[in-house]
This record gives sequence, C-alpha cells and structure tokens, in this order.
Amino acid sequence: MSEAPSVAPSHPLAGDPVFDLHVGGKMQIASTVPLLGRDDLSMAYTPGVARVCEAIAEDPSLTQHYTWVPNTVAVVTDGTAVLGLGDIGPAGAMPVMEGKAVLFKQFGGVDGIPICLDTTDVEEIIETVVRMAPSFGGINLEDISAPRCFEIEDRLKALLDIPVFHDDQHGTAVVALAALTNALKLTGRLFETTRVVIGGAGAAGVAVTKILLEAGIKDCVVVDRKGVLHSSREDLTPTKKALAEMTADVTGRTGSLADVLVGADVYIGVSGGNVPEEHVAPMAPDAIIFGLANPTPEVLPEVAHRHARVVATGRSDYPNQINNVLAFPGIFRGAFDVHATAITEGMKLAAAQALAALVGDDLAEDMIIPSPFDPRVPGAVSSAVAEAARRDGVARR
Amino acid sequence: MSEAPSVAPSHPLAGDPVFDLHVGGKMQIASTVPLLGRDDLSMAYTPGVARVCEAIAEDPSLTQHYTWVPNTVAVVTDGTAVLGLGDIGPAGAMPVMEGKAVLFKQFGGVDGIPICLDTTDVEEIIETVVRMAPSFGGINLEDISAPRCFEIEDRLKALLDIPVFHDDQHGTAVVALAALTNALKLTGRLFETTRVVIGGAGAAGVAVTKILLEAGIKDCVVVDRKGVLHSSREDLTPTKKALAEMTADVTGRTGSLADVLVGADVYIGVSGGNVPEEHVAPMAPDAIIFGLANPTPEVLPEVAHRHARVVATGRSDYPNQINNVLAFPGIFRGAFDVHATAITEGMKLAAAQALAALVGDDLAEDMIIPSPFDPRVPGAVSSAVAEAARRDGVARR
Repeated sequence: MSEAPSVAPSHPLAGDPVFDLHVGGKMQIASTVPLLGRDDLSMAYTPGVARVCEAIAEDPSLTQHYTWVPNTVAVVTDGTAVLGLGDIGPAGAMPVMEGKAVLFKQFGGVDGIPICLDTTDVEEIIETVVRMAPSFGGINLEDISAPRCFEIEDRLKALLDIPVFHDDQHGTAVVALAALTNALKLTGRLFETTRVVIGGAGAAGVAVTKILLEAGIKDCVVVDRKGVLHSSREDLTPTKKALAEMTADVTGRTGSLADVLVGADVYIGVSGGNVPEEHVAPMAPDAIIFGLANPTPEVLPEVAHRHARVVATGRSDYPNQINNVLAFPGIFRGAFDVHATAITEGMKLAAAQALAALVGDDLAEDMIIPSPFDPRVPGAVSSAVAEAARRDGVARR
Repeated sequence: MSEAPSVAPSHPLAGDPVFDLHVGGKMQIASTVPLLGRDDLSMAYTPGVARVCEAIAEDPSLTQHYTWVPNTVAVVTDGTAVLGLGDIGPAGAMPVMEGKAVLFKQFGGVDGIPICLDTTDVEEIIETVVRMAPSFGGINLEDISAPRCFEIEDRLKALLDIPVFHDDQHGTAVVALAALTNALKLTGRLFETTRVVIGGAGAAGVAVTKILLEAGIKDCVVVDRKGVLHSSREDLTPTKKALAEMTADVTGRTGSLADVLVGADVYIGVSGGNVPEEHVAPMAPDAIIFGLANPTPEVLPEVAHRHARVVATGRSDYPNQINNVLAFPGIFRGAFDVHATAITEGMKLAAAQALAALVGDDLAEDMIIPSPFDPRVPGAVSSAVAEAARRDGVARR
C-alpha cells in the first residue's frame, strides 16, 4: 500500500484545471532502495543501518556518501513576498515552494524540500534554519520580503558551511546578466561603456545591480518610486544607501526615472509598476528594455518595441523570457556535484556566461536567452558552476 | 537531467553491502505532475499557481486539498538516543531517519521527511518544530532520549493541531499490546487477572505500561536498575514517580526484579541489559516473556522457552517479532485519511486490536503477531485508526 490518500471526491474548486492539477500536491517521497523482505529491511533499517550511523558519527564527512543530504535543498520561505501576491503566510506559500521543489528535481536532479516557516522574525528564521541545517545539503531562500531577506541570507552564509542562495535575488540576476550579455553583443556594445538604468531597489534590483557591476558595467543608476538612489537623499535604507554609493554616487546622476532614461542604453525593470511610453521614447538608439515584472511587465513588449531593438520579459508567452529556472537548478547541481561549501560571486558569473554562450549562432533580437526547456541548459550551467567552485576554492571534491 | 549526483567512484567503505546500499542515501523527491513544456510550467508554477496560493491564503483548510502537506510527516530527531547507539548526534542519526521515511512510504504511502536537529535543548526543539509545522501534516518524534522526549511530545501535542507521535514510545507500546493480547488469549488469561512485570522505565517502558493499564491490566509493576518503582523510593524522577503511582503503589508490590518475577504471568523487557535465567525460572506456569531489547533480548529465546510458553523479541530472526513498522505507517495513514488533528489513546488501542485480530485462526505459540510483510497489516491498522479518530472526535473529514 503505497498510494497517496484518496482526496475528497469533490474538492471545493473541482473542474478548474489548475486546481485539479494541484489536488494532493505536486510531489512525493520515493525510496531508492528495495524493501521487499526481511533481508532488505535488515540492511536499509535495523540492524544493518546501525553501522552506517556509527561510521558517520565518527566521521561526519561520510554524510556526503551515505545519506541523501548532499543532494537535498531546503526551499525555505516565511510567505512574506510570494510571487506578486505579497505577504500571504506560510500555508499560502506552499504551492509555490512545491513547484520550486519539482523544478529543482526536473531540471537539476536536486531533491528540494519545501519548508514554510510560521515566523517572520529575522532572528527566529535564522536560528530555525541553522538548527535544521544538518538535514540539508543547501538552503534556497524563497519569497522572503526585502530588506529582511538580505540580512537573513548574509547571516546564514556566515553561519553555515553549505550553499545558501536567495533565488529571488541571485537567480534573477544571473539570468538577467546572461540575457544582457547577448543583448550587448547583438547591439555592438561593451559593458564598460553601456549606460544602464535599473527600475526597482528590492531583492531583484539589488542583486541585478551588483552582478552587472561585477560583470563590468560602469554607468549604472537605480531608481525607486522617489527617483534615482543617491546619497544626497535623506530617505534611504542602509541597503539603498549602499546601492547608491555603488552607482549614482559614482556617476553623479540624479533626478527622476524620466531624467535618467534620456539617452540610456538599457532599462531593466524589476519593480512592478508601469513606465509610460514617453519615458522610454528618448532612450539611445538600439535601446535594450527588460520589463521583468510578472504578470505585467513595466513596459509592455508592444510598446517597448517601438523604442528598443531588444526586448525581454519574465513571461513565457513572449520571446526572451528571463526565467529563474534557467539558473537555480544548474547552480545547485553544480555546487552539489563538487560538495561546494558556498555559492560564490564567481559561480554566479560563470552560470550567466554559460547561459549566454548557449545561444551561440542563434543570437537574434528574439533569441538572447535559451528556452527553459533547452536540454543543454542544466548541464552547461552545472559544469560551469562546478568549475568556478573549484577555482574559488569552495569545492570539497 | 534528473540524475542523482555521481558519488565518488571509490567511497571509503566500498565493497561492504550495507554501505554500498547506502551510497547516495535511500530516498528521493519525485514530481507527481507533468513538467514537459510551457503549458505544464504555467499550471504547476507561475502564473497558474498564484491562484492556488491565494485560495489557500483565504482559506488555509484548502492546504488539505491542494498541497502535499496532509500526506507528509516530519521524522524529527536530535540524535540523542539512536537505536542502541545512544547520543550520536544529528548527522549520525540521518540513515535511521531516512530508513524510517522509506518505511512510512512503503507500508503507509506516507511521505516522510527526515529532520535531524542541531540542538538538544528541549525549548529549542519545541520552538523549531512549531515553526516548521505549517510544512507538515504530522510530526513523528524519533530517537530522542528520555525523559526529554516526554516533555517534548506533551508540549508539541498541546501546541499543534496535527498528529504528534513519539514512535519509540507508542509504536512499541501498540505492537507489544497486540502481541500480549494474543498471548493472553492463547494461554487462557484475562487482562484483569494477569500479573505483569515491565523491565525498564525509559521511553518504551513508560508507554508500554500506560497502554497495558488502558487495556485493562490491573496488576503491573515497573522495574528499573534499582528495583520496583514505588513511591517509597527517594530517587524517582517525576516520570518514574507518576509511573509508580499507576502501578506498584496500587498493588503494593516492592522489591527487586527477582522478587516480583516470582509467580508473575508476564515479563516485558524494554531495558536492554540481561535477566538471569534463575530470575525467570519461578514465573507462573504458561508464562509469557517478551525480551524486546535489540540486538540482544533481555532473555534469550533459547533460555526463555525453558520457562515460558510464549516468547517474543524485537528481532527478525526469531518468531513473534515486536516490530514498530507494524504500527506507525498504518497509524499515520489512518490519521491522515481522516485529516485527524491528533493521535488519541483510542486510536492506539484500535491499532493494537486490529493487529491482534489479523492473526485469527493462525494463533499459536510462534504466531502471536503478524509479519511486517503481511500485506493486510497497513490497511487493517489504518481503517481501525481512522474509525477510532472519528469516534474520538479528532477527524476533520
């Protein structure tokens, strides 16, 4: 008897294909060993298992060989920033975490376990994850609201010797950098001389800005609802202040979104909200516009195409989809394959370069990033990430 | 690419069949929904999943329909009392927790998730489990040392509205009661007039004593290293004091194990340690001896048979194996099938009665309990448990 439980014949929203698909959830546990008789039981469980336990107790590094731990990632949320829905709590977040877990398996062979926490307190989230950590090979933080997500990730990275990765930040940043790399190539631009405007200073905005600077962008400004982030502003949070110092303080640019878009080469929207056509109209020739908000891009592709040569969104029904699933499964696969103790900036950059390179000769205005279903993606990303882990000295094998 | 990672070709203990079986662990995650193209993705993940999240956020009871939560059990340990190995820590405990998880799936269709905690502090364990609780349909406490395990279970039961079950206590108690029920029947005894001696006052001893009293045993004493638990003793922990008040204080019996075994009908050893033959020799005619310590029973079957008519152990290589796997998968299956908010004493008694009844006409000295591989076991236990849950008013459907 290894069936899932029979769900009540008529569930509340029966007939709706999306709800029907979700009946009973989207995942299950499966045994990888035979359990057909006493001999199987005596090896997989008592008395045989005792020797494996003793061996690991004497040498905890054997956990990497004799348990599922090194292939597992806890998909951890507090339900405070779920998709575009905001703070819907841990119960409401579960279908997204299950979805993430099945994508981890499908595209990375990684065993994801959804952990929805019944606390939004930063200290409690950190100590809870630290206490659970021996059960997992990595921690994927998901849909935790900014700025709490920054401190939680930084502190967990310092406390744990396994990969800790906030996908809403770094997954988005890696795929956006891959797409931008190809967009610059297509329009004959160099990172060093390209003017970039980032719309939004949340989790994704912060991470996209940082990875673009690491990749060589020199002229970059970040804009929030009140305009360009600049140290002259009195209202900046510590995170936004730090961002301003890396961007507008260097270039000296200030003003509104409309002001800085004049003559800009690239606009990357990670804010939600809507950018009027007249703001993007004065961008530079062959402009590049990424409107990554879901479901409604900051600039609708129909509009963007009137003023830009290359357009990308977060949506699957337009070309050039900036989809995190291109990054996180391969990044963890690569990290796990070498038993990495962390996910470094170098590993993220390597993932972006590998993704960009896959486009190769197919490079075109409507093909700057591979499809999530391109079978080459996970292998290319994981190999590049594993190699970078060795280079950065975080690989344990 | 959904392969597990390639394990290092020659792992430390390669060639040992038990260690070879454990390479890469014993379990994995599997998706239960198709993820073959964009349409699948847009239903299982964004944008489709957002509607399911919103519906659950508005009505958390929909978690029972549209997530895997109601079929999952966290197998939680702090690694302080693993098998007979004692306090080997969370890493060393993982192979047992994985084993437990695959048994949950194999015999109950329940998705078990091993959670090994990096703390042994009672308060920290409790608050950690409470924070994780929205992710799970039930909590199975495992291999947590006494007396901490009693407070942890009691407090979690009070704090959570999902089943909380400490298998080392109640799994053992349920199966022991089932076996004793048939042993009494076979030897023509009644619960009310049977004299029982329990050897050991740890997790199993406490739970076995309580369930036997609930089942109708009137004359029961519990013996620890210093003799019969009796309120006249100065050295009793609160747990042992409470046990004494339920047992020897009622019967008035005191003294050593040897003293109380004279004329006793039943000895149940859950202590480890060794009981000399001369102590069991003076037991009543047609005596019943359960030596449940693993791997070495308190009384070896060869010895016990010289003085008892019915003998049971915890081992698979002797008849009458008292194996928890006969109980915990069906108990959680039954509880989950009716979305039970707790596992009541009535549900445990029902599980024991269902197990005992399965033996039926096969009842004999060497057949007082079904085999763990009897295919009727999980269904019989889960139906009886679900029915009892409805009777006790803890079923949500």
